[in-house]
Amino acid sequence: MPLKDVLARIDADLPAATDRLLDLLRVPSISTDPAFKADCQTAAEWLVSDLASMGITASVRPTSGHPMVVGHVDGPENSPHVLFYGHYDVQPVDPLSLWHSDPFDPRVEDTPKGKVIRGRGAADDKGQLMTFLEACRAWKAVNGSLPCRITFLFEGEEESGSPSLIPFLRDNADELRADVALICDTGMFQDTAPAIITMLRGMAREEFTINAATRDLHSGMYGGPAINPIRVLTRILGGLHDDHGHVTVPGFYEGVPELPDAIRAQWQNLAFDHATFLGDVGLSQPAGEDDRTPLEMIWSRPTAEINGIWGGYTGEGFKTVLPAEAHAKISFRLVGQQDPDAISRNFRDWVTAQLPPDCRVEWKELGGAAASQMQIDHPLFEQTRHALTEEWGTPASYVGCGGSIPIAGYFQSILGMESILAGFGRDDDQIHSPNEKYDMECFHKGIRSWARVLDKLS
Amino acid sequence: MPLKDVLARIDADLPAATDRLLDLLRVPSISTDPAFKADCQTAAEWLVSDLASMGITASVRPTSGHPMVVGHVDGPENSPHVLFYGHYDVQPVDPLSLWHSDPFDPRVEDTPKGKVIRGRGAADDKGQLMTFLEACRAWKAVNGSLPCRITFLFEGEEESGSPSLIPFLRDNADELRADVALICDTGMFQDTAPAIITMLRGMAREEFTINAATRDLHSGMYGGPAINPIRVLTRILGGLHDDHGHVTVPGFYEGVPELPDAIRAQWQNLAFDHATFLGDVGLSQPAGEDDRTPLEMIWSRPTAEINGIWGGYTGEGFKTVLPAEAHAKISFRLVGQQDPDAISRNFRDWVTAQLPPDCRVEWKELGGAAASQMQIDHPLFEQTRHALTEEWGTPASYVGCGGSIPIAGYFQSILGMESILAGFGRDDDQIHSPNEKYDMECFHKGIRSWARVLDKLS
Repeated sequence: MPLKDVLARIDADLPAATDRLLDLLRVPSISTDPAFKADCQTAAEWLVSDLASMGITASVRPTSGHPMVVGHVDGPENSPHVLFYGHYDVQPVDPLSLWHSDPFDPRVEDTPKGKVIRGRGAADDKGQLMTFLEACRAWKAVNGSLPCRITFLFEGEEESGSPSLIPFLRDNADELRADVALICDTGMFQDTAPAIITMLRGMAREEFTINAATRDLHSGMYGGPAINPIRVLTRILGGLHDDHGHVTVPGFYEGVPELPDAIRAQWQNLAFDHATFLGDVGLSQPAGEDDRTPLEMIWSRPTAEINGIWGGYTGEGFKTVLPAEAHAKISFRLVGQQDPDAISRNFRDWVTAQLPPDCRVEWKELGGAAASQMQIDHPLFEQTRHALTEEWGTPASYVGCGGSIPIAGYFQSILGMESILAGFGRDDDQIHSPNEKYDMECFHKGIRSWARVLDKLS
Repeated sequence: MPLKDVLARIDADLPAATDRLLDLLRVPSISTDPAFKADCQTAAEWLVSDLASMGITASVRPTSGHPMVVGHVDGPENSPHVLFYGHYDVQPVDPLSLWHSDPFDPRVEDTPKGKVIRGRGAADDKGQLMTFLEACRAWKAVNGSLPCRITFLFEGEEESGSPSLIPFLRDNADELRADVALICDTGMFQDTAPAIITMLRGMAREEFTINAATRDLHSGMYGGPAINPIRVLTRILGGLHDDHGHVTVPGFYEGVPELPDAIRAQWQNLAFDHATFLGDVGLSQPAGEDDRTPLEMIWSRPTAEINGIWGGYTGEGFKTVLPAEAHAKISFRLVGQQDPDAISRNFRDWVTAQLPPDCRVEWKELGGAAASQMQIDHPLFEQTRHALTEEWGTPASYVGCGGSIPIAGYFQSILGMESILAGFGRDDDQIHSPNEKYDMECFHKGIRSWARVLDKLS
């Protein structure tokens, strides 16, 4: 049956597809917080059951952390084999007070910009992974079978550093290896143009505690002679960037390639509006390296950011305490050949060298991932680009991405396959923030986009 | 009846006195946290009832915050009139996980250094204020009446900046004014020698929030071009002290007197062991101004300390967020003629001048208090010093104090009376920290000390 029947089926089934997504969004599968372990299991089981409902065999596969979901469906003989990847876990929801509705009581809302699906995970990544499942469901309903062999892989630890991913890929490489991977966990370019991401930043993360006295001290009794670890922490982290926004950790820029002139020229031709990008979140001046454009910074430059800091008394009122310890969480976005292990080592040495007498530092092991760049030789890259262009009526481009999706690098290094990163998120989706949403238009046209990709594969 | 009968009565009554203190310690009268408002009222009522039990008329006196307790008892004609001050409110207990027992389930514990009374407020200030009440109780039980006119004033907001104190003192000045005040909220010198504090540091406090973007951002999407308020906060606070430990806020040292040579010489003769003072809390090197001794720093130099800092994701796991805001609580200990209002103004200007584009700062109004120095002309100063020397068998001294007890300054400026600050706390009492305790020896000999002071007044 022709593609238009599948697309018509998708249009007609949108209310039911939305209900299925809302159902999945009700599961608070926050992977980083052990309190939600059972919910992660529930979300995995939900996906197995949803695949089963369209006749696809899948199972919950235990790991030492949250489980994977793996499913398989055959296609016609000699058809290509694709692996589709998404993640069912979500970010924490704090600060809860800034949500206008319960993050796990999702709903469809009318907004001045159109209908949105509101709730934690709506865009990252439950809504996005369901675009592919709904495309498969519609295709199968219309045609009775799928147009190619598909392996499904859903992870439950993407938002917490994917500790089980590498061993799982290694242990199941033969089962998971396909011609190419499809990953739906990224966004549109400038909210309107479909995009395939071919450059992804890597990440190194550090969480550390600076200890000083053996107990909290009274600042009246000890203020002055006793070292305050918050003072030490702010002094060290206050020097993480120089006056030009460059990171001061020795060796940090080793392996950072200069952007080729051709790419820089191409990016300059992209209709990226710095003022709007920043203005949408209440900012006006680019921070960061003062000799780079914002787009260059996000796609091709490494960063060091303090994602969390805490120490002393942080409650209501006041307490004149000199705390015994102070804490921070830092993440580095990496590009090119930057080595996450070397970055972590250099950062730790840099912190340790600045400790005054009587202070000690303790580190958590969090791991990292290098940046990755796709080889776009497989014909499905161009086919996907055309399918996206047809659905959205706007040329789809190959672009960079500021985020870190280590899975694409692991698929390269462990399974030897490239990934087509195509997703339908928008800049104002507020992923990782309160009031996350996914535009109904993105959900709907996302499903239709994948149907068009399946059509190219048939 | 002679003093020795009163002292014998105190010795015999110590178990009952301890039970009374434990009873008061069970009330979680944390003044800074609105959740404990009713408990503050309960603690005030407990004190009224305890005074009533020894025939002293007292009442709970409402304020716009937590109530005061005021009681009066007459003495023989022409006897002196003293005002005794203590506070029934206590510090918050976090981090609760570091307490070895429930902070509000107080108990007597055997330790290698002797018996201690363990619980929040044991030393600061419930245990200390009860030393005076128990001395009065024993004196009255033995002699039938008290040796002088006494006014009792117990405050419930000392740990939260005493917002109601100044209006209350002004509105009730005639009722509260006495020849001299006795305040029991301080410590022993070097844990062994009784001490009367005649120099107290003042305080200015600031709590502020640095705002940047209108919402939390994803560091993959915005890391680099978007300013991170934690980075701004650490950069500003990291520059609060220079490499010599001096505070860099302009005008900060205005009004700081140089220590007179005579006082410096006297302090050098005090058996203050810097190594032990720091070693007791796991430190070895004095931090702070590198051209001052620790004792000089604590008693006669101003400080700037970060008492709390927080921003971004601080829970278990990791979240690569660029937060919309970051927060800090800062306190300044003041000496000499330093003006708390000027210090606050200068600090705010200093922070504001360092804000990068797109950042804003919001302040809380917390108020401050100047430092104070006692005039020790009233004969009760020397009488108290002798009474303390007799009880402890060690010469009592006039000393400085790093803490801020604004009440002594208010008694000077509003009621025109000096304060005798005599207390029995020890450096390891862990006031404002987990596992606060008060040594049974201090409680016992504290009661006996006040009985000796009452004897001088008779």
